[in-house]
Amino acid sequence: MKPLSARLETVTSLFRTPPKQIGLPPGTLIHVGTREMEHPLLTRTDFSPSDYQQRSAASLADCLPPAPTDGVSWVHLEGLHDVTLVNELGNLAQLHALAQEDILNTHHQPKYEEYDDAILIILKLLTIDGDHLQIRDEQFCLALSSGRLVTFREQTGELFTMVHQRLAAKNAKFRERGADYLAYALMDTVFDSYYHVLETIGERLDLIEAELIDHPSRDLLQQIHQIRGQLSFVRKTVSPIHDLTRVLIHSESPLIEERTRLYLRDLHDHILHVLANLDSYRDTAKGLIELSLSSMSYRTNEVMQVLTVIAAIFIPLTFIAGVYGMNFAVMPELAWRFGYPFALLLMVACATGMLWYFKRKKWF
Amino acid sequence: MKPLSARLETVTSLFRTPPKQIGLPPGTLIHVGTREMEHPLLTRTDFSPSDYQQRSAASLADCLPPAPTDGVSWVHLEGLHDVTLVNELGNLAQLHALAQEDILNTHHQPKYEEYDDAILIILKLLTIDGDHLQIRDEQFCLALSSGRLVTFREQTGELFTMVHQRLAAKNAKFRERGADYLAYALMDTVFDSYYHVLETIGERLDLIEAELIDHPSRDLLQQIHQIRGQLSFVRKTVSPIHDLTRVLIHSESPLIEERTRLYLRDLHDHILHVLANLDSYRDTAKGLIELSLSSMSYRTNEVMQVLTVIAAIFIPLTFIAGVYGMNFAVMPELAWRFGYPFALLLMVACATGMLWYFKRKKWF
Amino acid sequence: MKPLSARLETVTSLFRTPPKQIGLPPGTLIHVGTREMEHPLLTRTDFSPSDYQQRSAASLADCLPPAPTDGVSWVHLEGLHDVTLVNELGNLAQLHALAQEDILNTHHQPKYEEYDDAILIILKLLTIDGDHLQIRDEQFCLALSSGRLVTFREQTGELFTMVHQRLAAKNAKFRERGADYLAYALMDTVFDSYYHVLETIGERLDLIEAELIDHPSRDLLQQIHQIRGQLSFVRKTVSPIHDLTRVLIHSESPLIEERTRLYLRDLHDHILHVLANLDSYRDTAKGLIELSLSSMSYRTNEVMQVLTVIAAIFIPLTFIAGVYGMNFAVMPELAWRFGYPFALLLMVACATGMLWYFKRKKWF
Amino acid sequence: MKPLSARLETVTSLFRTPPKQIGLPPGTLIHVGTREMEHPLLTRTDFSPSDYQQRSAASLADCLPPAPTDGVSWVHLEGLHDVTLVNELGNLAQLHALAQEDILNTHHQPKYEEYDDAILIILKLLTIDGDHLQIRDEQFCLALSSGRLVTFREQTGELFTMVHQRLAAKNAKFRERGADYLAYALMDTVFDSYYHVLETIGERLDLIEAELIDHPSRDLLQQIHQIRGQLSFVRKTVSPIHDLTRVLIHSESPLIEERTRLYLRDLHDHILHVLANLDSYRDTAKGLIELSLSSMSYRTNEVMQVLTVIAAIFIPLTFIAGVYGMNFAVMPELAWRFGYPFALLLMVACATGMLWYFKRKKWF
Amino acid sequence: MKPLSARLETVTSLFRTPPKQIGLPPGTLIHVGTREMEHPLLTRTDFSPSDYQQRSAASLADCLPPAPTDGVSWVHLEGLHDVTLVNELGNLAQLHALAQEDILNTHHQPKYEEYDDAILIILKLLTIDGDHLQIRDEQFCLALSSGRLVTFREQTGELFTMVHQRLAAKNAKFRERGADYLAYALMDTVFDSYYHVLETIGERLDLIEAELIDHPSRDLLQQIHQIRGQLSFVRKTVSPIHDLTRVLIHSESPLIEERTRLYLRDLHDHILHVLANLDSYRDTAKGLIELSLSSMSYRTNEVMQVLTVIAAIFIPLTFIAGVYGMNFAVMPELAWRFGYPFALLLMVACATGMLWYFKRKKWF
Ligand SMILES: [Mg+2]
Ligand SMILES: [Mg+2]
Ligand SMILES: [Mg+2]
Ligand SMILES: [Mg+2]
Ligand SMILES: [Mg+2]
Ligand SMILES: [Mg+2]
Ligand SMILES: [Mg+2]
Ligand SMILES: [Mg+2]
Ligand SMILES: [Mg+2]
Ligand SMILES: [Mg+2]
Ligand SMILES: [Mg+2]
Ligand SMILES: [Mg+2]
Ligand SMILES: [Mg+2]
Ligand SMILES: [Mg+2]
Ligand SMILES: [Mg+2]
Ligand SMILES: [Mg+2]
Ligand SMILES: [Mg+2]
Ligand SMILES: [Mg+2]
Ligand SMILES: [Mg+2]
Ligand SMILES: [Mg+2]
Ligand SMILES: [Mg+2]
Ligand SMILES: [Mg+2]
Ligand SMILES: [Mg+2]
Ligand SMILES: [Mg+2]
Ligand SMILES: [Mg+2]
Ligand SMILES: [Mg+2]
Ligand SMILES: [Mg+2]
Ligand SMILES: [Mg+2]
Ligand SMILES: [Mg+2]
Ligand SMILES: [Mg+2]
Ligand SMILES: [Mg+2]
Repeated sequence: MKPLSARLETVTSLFRTPPKQIGLPPGTLIHVGTREMEHPLLTRTDFSPSDYQQRSAASLADCLPPAPTDGVSWVHLEGLHDVTLVNELGNLAQLHALAQEDILNTHHQPKYEEYDDAILIILKLLTIDGDHLQIRDEQFCLALSSGRLVTFREQTGELFTMVHQRLAAKNAKFRERGADYLAYALMDTVFDSYYHVLETIGERLDLIEAELIDHPSRDLLQQIHQIRGQLSFVRKTVSPIHDLTRVLIHSESPLIEERTRLYLRDLHDHILHVLANLDSYRDTAKGLIELSLSSMSYRTNEVMQVLTVIAAIFIPLTFIAGVYGMNFAVMPELAWRFGYPFALLLMVACATGMLWYFKRKKWF
Repeated sequence: MKPLSARLETVTSLFRTPPKQIGLPPGTLIHVGTREMEHPLLTRTDFSPSDYQQRSAASLADCLPPAPTDGVSWVHLEGLHDVTLVNELGNLAQLHALAQEDILNTHHQPKYEEYDDAILIILKLLTIDGDHLQIRDEQFCLALSSGRLVTFREQTGELFTMVHQRLAAKNAKFRERGADYLAYALMDTVFDSYYHVLETIGERLDLIEAELIDHPSRDLLQQIHQIRGQLSFVRKTVSPIHDLTRVLIHSESPLIEERTRLYLRDLHDHILHVLANLDSYRDTAKGLIELSLSSMSYRTNEVMQVLTVIAAIFIPLTFIAGVYGMNFAVMPELAWRFGYPFALLLMVACATGMLWYFKRKKWF
Repeated sequence: MKPLSARLETVTSLFRTPPKQIGLPPGTLIHVGTREMEHPLLTRTDFSPSDYQQRSAASLADCLPPAPTDGVSWVHLEGLHDVTLVNELGNLAQLHALAQEDILNTHHQPKYEEYDDAILIILKLLTIDGDHLQIRDEQFCLALSSGRLVTFREQTGELFTMVHQRLAAKNAKFRERGADYLAYALMDTVFDSYYHVLETIGERLDLIEAELIDHPSRDLLQQIHQIRGQLSFVRKTVSPIHDLTRVLIHSESPLIEERTRLYLRDLHDHILHVLANLDSYRDTAKGLIELSLSSMSYRTNEVMQVLTVIAAIFIPLTFIAGVYGMNFAVMPELAWRFGYPFALLLMVACATGMLWYFKRKKWF
Repeated sequence: MKPLSARLETVTSLFRTPPKQIGLPPGTLIHVGTREMEHPLLTRTDFSPSDYQQRSAASLADCLPPAPTDGVSWVHLEGLHDVTLVNELGNLAQLHALAQEDILNTHHQPKYEEYDDAILIILKLLTIDGDHLQIRDEQFCLALSSGRLVTFREQTGELFTMVHQRLAAKNAKFRERGADYLAYALMDTVFDSYYHVLETIGERLDLIEAELIDHPSRDLLQQIHQIRGQLSFVRKTVSPIHDLTRVLIHSESPLIEERTRLYLRDLHDHILHVLANLDSYRDTAKGLIELSLSSMSYRTNEVMQVLTVIAAIFIPLTFIAGVYGMNFAVMPELAWRFGYPFALLLMVACATGMLWYFKRKKWF
Repeated sequence: MKPLSARLETVTSLFRTPPKQIGLPPGTLIHVGTREMEHPLLTRTDFSPSDYQQRSAASLADCLPPAPTDGVSWVHLEGLHDVTLVNELGNLAQLHALAQEDILNTHHQPKYEEYDDAILIILKLLTIDGDHLQIRDEQFCLALSSGRLVTFREQTGELFTMVHQRLAAKNAKFRERGADYLAYALMDTVFDSYYHVLETIGERLDLIEAELIDHPSRDLLQQIHQIRGQLSFVRKTVSPIHDLTRVLIHSESPLIEERTRLYLRDLHDHILHVLANLDSYRDTAKGLIELSLSSMSYRTNEVMQVLTVIAAIFIPLTFIAGVYGMNFAVMPELAWRFGYPFALLLMVACATGMLWYFKRKKWF
């Protein structure tokens, strides 16, 4: 187990969300968050039952033409700092200014909102650095309108490669489905990534538990504190998605086909599973702290008792020795023939009495 | 009480569920979990009011023919690692690909789902090793369609022997019921096994409580930690079943006969009972830890007070003895005739003063 | 306050419910629990507005004839181990086999169930041994059908004497009511007994609180642990009754007359009151433990500080005395004329310095 | 801050409610509680838009005549121990025997119940003794029927003087309202008194908090324990009223006029406010205990460390001095010329080593 | 980090709300709270799609004339102590006397209430002093009636400057919206200010966490106690607003236009976000206290063990030295030739034995 650089990151910092300026008009488009890449990256993917076309590094103009007949057009933006670009894509997806504001606020909690001609879904991608156990969230938004899906994420990455492969496959059934099924497939991929985070944390927790039972230490306690903070962060991120998928399943929007509903129920299962596991880990972490503290308590007590017994026995003996080490001119015992054995016997009697008393009190 | 090999298994390991590959298409059939047996084992049981036939170690082909008229065909698979076989049986049971994916994912939480022509129920079998108190869960799925029940479990075992006996009995009323009643009977058997797990844990907890009050120790604390983890694991497994049976009772599926509903209410009672007992055990375990820690606290305090009194009394006395043990050439007291008694009196006065002070402070 | 024989009974044992055999057919009639009396005792009581007849130690045959016209027949069984007898009475009360199975399982949680022609209510009688504070529950079932009430309890006792007196009274209004009102009257008596249990526990808790504040001890802590377990047990027993009475009030069964509903609302009030008091006691017990532990913490700290001050002051002084007690041939100070006063001054200076330092640190 | 006579009253005693006799018929009129005054006191107040008449120390006969046309008759009883009187007034108010039983049971929790021609509201008056911080509850019942309000309280007092003044005022709008508005006005006065209790507790808590931070002590801990018990008692008393007012607002009883509803909503606001403040105080009290315990923990640790450092440094030094204080005939060092400086150097080296070790461990 | 003057303000004082006089008639207009400014300040702002007019320091008479046709009149009062003025403005806004009473009670919790022709919204402004981390709430009320918005706050301030600028802007779309949209814009500004408070607390918590891990101290513990109190205060203030916005979204009042609803949903998002962050901070603060206490526990244990080992080893050695320092005339060992080496060897053996025992016990 590599050492956890606990001091690099506080739990509090995970939860801080710097505020925007007070009093801005609603729908003011401002990028809130850190700029994660140099230039935003646009990808347009068109597919229909018979066709599949992907255009990477596309321009905005490339993305504007309508979707193919009987097909779907998927526009994917990586990098959210170019406010104008997000605005243009938001308009393309028929999103209200308030929805565009939410996409640009990368601290927005997950949410689902239906507009007249569009649906906005805000999710979070979670990544974890296995060595330092640092966790990061990234905003991921899906804007679903008729025949078109526009997606926005903060960073670039390989996450959706398999979705592209499945779309590009010969005779892919996938291409017969609508934009809602594509949105489902992307969400499914996002949720799969939560399992990876969970397992990374679980693996570390397992190592800590094994270590804690044998060699408890302050450093391990700090690691559990860190992990509790992270579990709490993941829970904060995932729990609003539970409501989101539930509402999605029962949505009556025409943008969601009846045959997709079964898949959305499967998504909901995933979230339930993630939440159940999070709770189990949280309870375990709490139990570990309690175990470790009570072990320590027991141990301190054992140590105390030995100290007490030794000290309590020898302190009076040493006192007796001290008495007969005094230099008074007149000390009759000193002159006795059996003074020394008498003193030793006195000590033995004293020690035996103490031991008997302690035994009776069951102190050792 | 045999020693609990606490170190063999961490609580965390109970909850870990290794993730699948990210981004797989929905309905991808992959076995997730450990392969529990060499070869999968198929059993087909057909019954009708007048007839009962069981074919063990059946081939897939044996299982495909339809159920007897006015009767039920029950196909039971033990061993889930043969993906093709599970797929064929899933198709036989008219299950959607997503449902088949869930059956193969042996970490799936308990769930109930209605499809057009089928019902899928996922449960967990729980077994406990009484000596080492190791708990294991096993996936058990029931796929109910018209006149047919297909069941899947990970391992082989004797669990359902009595169900077979009841079916085979002469003039058995059981054979007049449908596949839904058979599903009920199997679920009832599964739930009965939860009581066994609960009682095994309860027995151990009882022993620990009796021991803890008389001889608290770190090892007992660790055992309670283990038991809390297991109670938490059983709760995680059983609590989704509470919803499952509630939904089942109110299901309007034609696959569930009206006359079966009374039996399903009885099932629901069982789960309520198990959950109530789990909560009681959990509270008791928590109370035991608190009791043990506070007992220890009291004891440490008692010990501390004795040490303090002894040390506080003898330390000044020893100091006095030390003073008169110094070897200065000019120390008038040493030459006094009653110097020695004077020193002893000084010590007695000093000790009496301390004792009076401690008595007044009610320290012993 | 008589000493609580805490070791006679663990909290865990209160909650243990040994499981039945796995896989029995539903409705298998088996007595689960301990046999509480030698022979079961049957009592048949018939009443109508104008008549009252009670036959104690009745035979089964005595109980079978129908109720008087315009009247009610109440059959009361004490002792549940005779399975055949329970079965016959269950049939008389038109109970389903599953209901009869529940009556015989004396660990069944309280429940309310409506069948086509009958209503089954399972309750628990609670008794408490005031001296040893041992609590016991006993199953009590009411089976209500048209014009007839059959009741089952595990033991014999005087509990319902007053109900019989009220029925037997001249011109009793009671005899004009139906079987549902009789069931109400019995339930009311059962609930009254909960108050007795609660008050016995409350009285003990009150004594413990008064004692704990003045003379905290490990034994008191163990008694509170015991009481928490018992409060938790009573809560587990009573809380399902809260739902039971709520459902009963809103029942649309023809077996429950409209004019009885007001009385059922009164029953519901009782249960609410019992639950509120249980929660108060539970909070109080928790608060007492916290208070006692924190008092102990404060006290340990006080003791520690005195030990520290005494030890810290005398340890250096004793060291100085030790130095001048060494027997080196060449030790100039020993020969000084004012060597002894010098050493004493050194000691006084050292002690004064320490005291000043401790005062400044506010340690005493 | 006057000293809190904590020992006068246990928290448990606040919650104890001695049980009635088991098995009494429903509607048996028995006074449960303590007799608070010598003779019950009856007051009849009649008012109509044009008139106001109050008759103090009225007889029962004074109270029976009907209300003035277009007006309201308010009968107020102080003292509940005269069962016959309560029964007569209960009949006057058209209350069911069960309702009358509840009025006489002064431990009844707050409740709202609608009968055919009457509404019964049970509330609690709370009074607090600011010096000893003793809290008392008193039963207060309102029975509302057409044109008449009958109220019952356990003690006598000035609480409703202002209501009488407002009714008696010239051209008072109040007299144009019905009995329901009068009931509202009395409830509003009762709720106002809760604020007084809350503020008395809050004031004490504020003093304790300020004191605790500077001079933590066991006595303060006991005071907080007392206050937690009282907050818990007030919560138990007030929280059922939250439901009560909610149900009252939505009542469809003809006894409650539409124009009164707005006032009832204001009542509900008051209860919400009281509950929110109770929760804040409870959290604060809990936080104070935690703060005080953790402060104490820190302090004990500081003290421990000083003791350890001093003891650990001097114990070896004293040992060295002891060695060279031994009286063996042959001890070469004693005869060395620089034996004494050698011993002193040895001690300095030893002490320096320890100090360096402790510094490195950051123990001081 | 500037030192937190923790003693200036207790947590309790945050929650205290001095009560009004008992028994006042409902709707009695009394200012409850502190007078925050010398003279109340009135501002009237009229706008319509084509026009914008603002009159600062207006008189009451200035405010009475109706709103411009197709426009909105916004009257804003700063300073609530002038009861007559609030009464006049309340009447202008068509508010019931009870509503006016609520506006004047500056301790009122946030609430939403619909009257026949008006809506009353009570909110709280929160401000925080970043240096001393003192938090203050201020009442802010909005009374919405047809074409008119009257707002009341306790103090004066710059908070709504940007709203005025947006209204005054050339061709502002804002001026085309109604009074409901203006109310929304003000509420949005209020909620933005909560983020500022949250971030100030978060920043401090972050600093404390970093400090606590390296240098735990009692002062830091007290700061966390302070922060927990403040988080609890902010939660108490914000959580009723969660219900408020939810009810507002679903309101069917004609005073709220359909096209405003989307904006209200955005408001609701803000409150959800604030509450989620509050909970995260609260958990973190709790975790920090636990971490700090358990670190301290570990450390005390380490220190204890060193003390025990040193003391336990040297105490017997010192005793041996004491024995051979006694002055008995007859002590054979003293005369032995190898008496001194023998004594030293005895000491070494004794120390080795202890060390071996402690090693085996794993105490160091
Ligand atoms: Mg804004
Ligand atoms: Mg906004
Ligand atoms: Mg963030
Ligand atoms: Mg971000
Ligand atoms: Mg699935
Ligand atoms: Mg655990
Ligand atoms: Mg997947
Ligand atoms: Mg999936
Ligand atoms: Mg598993
Ligand atoms: Mg498995
Ligand atoms: Mg049953
Ligand atoms: Mg307990
Ligand atoms: Mg705990
Ligand atoms: Mg069974
Ligand atoms: Mg059963
Ligand atoms: Mg039992
Ligand atoms: Mg029993
Ligand atoms: Mg009653
Ligand atoms: Mg308490
Ligand atoms: Mg009764
Ligand atoms: Mg009653
Ligand atoms: Mg009472
Ligand atoms: Mg009373
Ligand atoms: Mg109000
Ligand atoms: Mg607090
Ligand atoms: Mg008032
Ligand atoms: Mg009021
Ligand atoms: Mg305030
Ligand atoms: Mg204020
Ligand atoms: Mg938004
Ligand atoms: Mg945390």
